[in-house]
Amino acid sequence: MKITKALITAAGRRQRTLPLQTLIDRDGVERSVLHILLNEVVQAGVESIGVVVWPGDERAYAAVAGDHVGRLHFVPQSEPLGYGHALYAARDFIGDAPFLHLVGDHLYVQRDSQSCVQPVMEVAQTAECTVSAVQATRESLLPYYGVIGGRRIQGHSDLYRVDTVMEKPTPTVAEQNLLIPGLRSGHYLCFFGMHVLTPTVMEILGRQLAEAQPDSMAKVTLSSALAELSGREQYLALEQQNSRYDLGVRYGLLSAQVALALNGQDRDEVLARLLELLAQRDLAGVR
Amino acid sequence: MKITKALITAAGRRQRTLPLQTLIDRDGVERSVLHILLNEVVQAGVESIGVVVWPGDERAYAAVAGDHVGRLHFVPQSEPLGYGHALYAARDFIGDAPFLHLVGDHLYVQRDSQSCVQPVMEVAQTAECTVSAVQATRESLLPYYGVIGGRRIQGHSDLYRVDTVMEKPTPTVAEQNLLIPGLRSGHYLCFFGMHVLTPTVMEILGRQLAEAQPDSMAKVTLSSALAELSGREQYLALEQQNSRYDLGVRYGLLSAQVALALNGQDRDEVLARLLELLAQRDLAGVR
Repeated sequence: MKITKALITAAGRRQRTLPLQTLIDRDGVERSVLHILLNEVVQAGVESIGVVVWPGDERAYAAVAGDHVGRLHFVPQSEPLGYGHALYAARDFIGDAPFLHLVGDHLYVQRDSQSCVQPVMEVAQTAECTVSAVQATRESLLPYYGVIGGRRIQGHSDLYRVDTVMEKPTPTVAEQNLLIPGLRSGHYLCFFGMHVLTPTVMEILGRQLAEAQPDSMAKVTLSSALAELSGREQYLALEQQNSRYDLGVRYGLLSAQVALALNGQDRDEVLARLLELLAQRDLAGVR
Repeated sequence: MKITKALITAAGRRQRTLPLQTLIDRDGVERSVLHILLNEVVQAGVESIGVVVWPGDERAYAAVAGDHVGRLHFVPQSEPLGYGHALYAARDFIGDAPFLHLVGDHLYVQRDSQSCVQPVMEVAQTAECTVSAVQATRESLLPYYGVIGGRRIQGHSDLYRVDTVMEKPTPTVAEQNLLIPGLRSGHYLCFFGMHVLTPTVMEILGRQLAEAQPDSMAKVTLSSALAELSGREQYLALEQQNSRYDLGVRYGLLSAQVALALNGQDRDEVLARLLELLAQRDLAGVR
């Protein structure tokens, strides 16, 4: 299976201005968060990208998309009815093809020159199934993520067969359902914000949304769809050693910028600047 | 003299998106650069603020101005004819009142709870003349700034009478014209990006622009106007110990964010984060 489409969700109220922020990427070039994400996606072979936006944000996004603007297909999410609803809004753009999915408020920082997206795409194309990038994550962070349960596939150090998915489980629930043999104690495999999804996911989302009460649409999430999918199709998870930065948390942009710089060509320049700022501040303290 | 108006210039091509960027201010609140600047200005007693913008940027600016949006008066600069032209575009808004002037691509970070703007306003209101905030700056940075020549006023450690102003002088020219007795060797007093200007400045700008050839309008700057003013009116400079961050340089936003955090209530949180990022990166290096 060949993956030529990607879908980025960016319509959430607290999320919609984040792709417009300017950072300096690993190559030392000033770009919007959206542009940095699009670079990753296009380098991995994707040809057209759907972006789910708050209606009216299209122009601002197009303005910061750089040379990828011609590949964008905007999908306005007309009502703020949650993550599942946002994904499903793009069903016509997706059609019956598998697609890469990224969230618009995260940035992925690799430690070497390798792409973060590429390995996930490759596993999905070879195994012809849904693949989620996951990361071993401390128990204390469970309230922020979707979490998978499953077991490592023999002969692979970083590939897992997924049996179940739960959204933001409590530590007790996680311990009963999501312990992965071989993982460091107190750690679980949490979503990294990067997936290759088969069209079955759209089908499941459509049904879950149709069956939801009007006031519980927001409970239909990618996790709820993938939980159902894990019982129906082969579903793999690929563990990442790279880092993802949630730009929506306090100092998320700062952390992402520092991580990009420390892992890129401007490492020395930025280290020197940080030390200078720290020294200035400390000198001021003893005046 | 009472100062109730301020003028922020933000129409420059490389400058116009900077006031829209989001940072976390010293109080730990997420705000646009514009909103942080407006807070400073309004706290210092200014009632209405003119913002010189690239035509069409008004809506985006209004959207990030927070509760100060009602105080804004947008002045579109119809052609990119330089700094002097941008200031002069606001002549009708300014009228014949003295006004505070800030550039929209700098952020000012004070080391204690004192305002950066307030002391400049106070000196201007007491002395009833134009006052520029300046900072002792290494010779190597002369290519970036307007520079004053003059002498310290007896009995004041930080107040100078200005005799001359030069824009981006060479070290040789600076040594011949701008040496200030009592300043550390190799240092000059450079503009801090913050001034209180009398209406005479507008009058001078108008004449200099009218006399300029069409292709040399950009040479009419605040420095050229203040150089002329220094020969006509009393003109003072107030030395700042605080820091200004030019957001338009590489990693300018990063430096400003780190400086805001290290001088604010989130100091410990941000220090911890920076150390964690450095440690992550260094562990990765020895894997």
